[in-house]
Amino acid sequence: MKVAGKQYRTVWMEGSSVFLIEQNLLPFDFKIFEARTYLDTCRAIKTMIVRGAGAIGATAGFAMAQAYLEGADPQKARAEIEATRPTAQNLFYAVERVFNAGKDKAAAEAQRIADEDADCCKKIGEFGVKLIIEGGKTFNIETHCNAGWLAFVDFGSALSPIYAARDQGKKVFVYVDETRPRSQGARLTAWELKNENIPHAIIPDNAGAYLMSLGKVDLMIVGADRIARNGDVANKIGTLEKAIAAKRYNIPFYVAAPTSTIDKDCPSGKDIPIEERSQDEVLYQTGPDKSGKMGTILVCSPGSEAINPAFDVTPAELITGIITEKGIHRPDDIRKI
Amino acid sequence: MKVAGKQYRTVWMEGSSVFLIEQNLLPFDFKIFEARTYLDTCRAIKTMIVRGAGAIGATAGFAMAQAYLEGADPQKARAEIEATRPTAQNLFYAVERVFNAGKDKAAAEAQRIADEDADCCKKIGEFGVKLIIEGGKTFNIETHCNAGWLAFVDFGSALSPIYAARDQGKKVFVYVDETRPRSQGARLTAWELKNENIPHAIIPDNAGAYLMSLGKVDLMIVGADRIARNGDVANKIGTLEKAIAAKRYNIPFYVAAPTSTIDKDCPSGKDIPIEERSQDEVLYQTGPDKSGKMGTILVCSPGSEAINPAFDVTPAELITGIITEKGIHRPDDIRKI
Repeated sequence: MKVAGKQYRTVWMEGSSVFLIEQNLLPFDFKIFEARTYLDTCRAIKTMIVRGAGAIGATAGFAMAQAYLEGADPQKARAEIEATRPTAQNLFYAVERVFNAGKDKAAAEAQRIADEDADCCKKIGEFGVKLIIEGGKTFNIETHCNAGWLAFVDFGSALSPIYAARDQGKKVFVYVDETRPRSQGARLTAWELKNENIPHAIIPDNAGAYLMSLGKVDLMIVGADRIARNGDVANKIGTLEKAIAAKRYNIPFYVAAPTSTIDKDCPSGKDIPIEERSQDEVLYQTGPDKSGKMGTILVCSPGSEAINPAFDVTPAELITGIITEKGIHRPDDIRKI
Repeated sequence: MKVAGKQYRTVWMEGSSVFLIEQNLLPFDFKIFEARTYLDTCRAIKTMIVRGAGAIGATAGFAMAQAYLEGADPQKARAEIEATRPTAQNLFYAVERVFNAGKDKAAAEAQRIADEDADCCKKIGEFGVKLIIEGGKTFNIETHCNAGWLAFVDFGSALSPIYAARDQGKKVFVYVDETRPRSQGARLTAWELKNENIPHAIIPDNAGAYLMSLGKVDLMIVGADRIARNGDVANKIGTLEKAIAAKRYNIPFYVAAPTSTIDKDCPSGKDIPIEERSQDEVLYQTGPDKSGKMGTILVCSPGSEAINPAFDVTPAELITGIITEKGIHRPDDIRKI
């Protein structure tokens, strides 16, 4: 996608360096981060310079390629890369493919994974756009977190059908869940949509069910960090709550993800490890003051602790369908893909 | 309740002044605000120096008494006070009582309303504590927003049973929903619970259903801003989502409120006006930096707009029971109280 008129991917490799859009600085500053070694790239994943299932996967693949290029112990490097984030299936998928490719073919294999990710996301848009039926009036879509192009190499998963709808001239409006504590909706999805001139509004996560109860949401689309064999989906914390609310109000609830997100070794959502992150993500917020100077402030009562689970699991029965690069599937059918 | 060892109410009247705990400064600073005129008091309600159904009601009653003492036009003053906040039933209830008391009895009537509020909240605790059955292990309660003593004159509604449980030596743990956008949970409820040494953790609003799905929540108690005749409840935005999730996981979902919150002229939740507040409450956050200096930062993508409905309506069918100063009622029975 484009930033200020120039075409970008979220992650790419040149020589032995991996280049990443510095997502921790978004939406306030746009910078490219260069990771010169595979350990730099590991740190970039861990500190969430890159985040989002597909982008993590591609980055991890590039990190594995860097490790081979540096002459690092491949087994050790693989374990280090895999230890950066526990939930995203794409990470394990990509590292395994590049590891198995071996030293000579590692860089090409990592590039192939990145290209496939972009291509899959484009196809997800082509399938998903069929769900957006505006029929003369604006079609309202709610989304949670950021499953846009920033979360992948390009196009995105949950936002790809929205970009496709815009390209087809369909009138869409997007309710963007803030997605506390890291506010990827308010910060990244809103930034993407504003860059692409797609009408949208940020809503507090608390307002989801209320807007649904008023009939203001026609469709909800979210991404996925891991899909179990039975169609259960791990995604950003709060997805479960939205799926439960959508069910109550008979609002179609779709998950959009490339098939690389499916973990066929994982029987059900119960088997997906859920990352607990630092309580500081809840207690503090960072952003610019009126003069533009970045600052970090305490937003909770001093001395109280917080709990910060990063993901939750939405059971298959709450999901209307899963959009992949292969089509739109019933969650039950995921095992057969 | 006590602050640093000294007994306080959230609002009281001395002479012709109304004194209020400055809740916009909490939890970072504790100050008392003096409203010398009824218009000062109106502004205090509007700017949320005082917030919470019961505290707003008592304050509005005092404002009406001030108007009489100042020799203002009572009809005009009543309309001005009633225009400060549209949702809390207690406001209209208190203003009407003090208005009808007339000039000579206004101050005494306003004081009576404040005393009744504190007394009702104490009784809510006595009834509600029966729902807290620890049986040897810690009993886990989730609450949304702040329906503690800060939201009333004293004791609180949703938190009153928790304070009573502590007084009875019961082991409780409270999951405190952050309650974006104004974060009354993270700021006020956490502050109250810390002051009272009650074990608790702040959770992102998004984590509610997840914790419920893990069986970590034994009971959810929230407050109410208005209760319709059919038992529908208007409360802080996000309450509806929690009630839907609690229903799915068979978690008892209770509303705690004095009977003054019941609006018998209001047939159902559909008839409750929902206040839309400024988008800036979503877009910006205020708090101290590391040096303790207060600052306001932008927490969303620059240039994107936000929607900020302050309340939602939870239908009676999702509510296990309503705790008032008269007992624990089925929502269906509210019309008969």
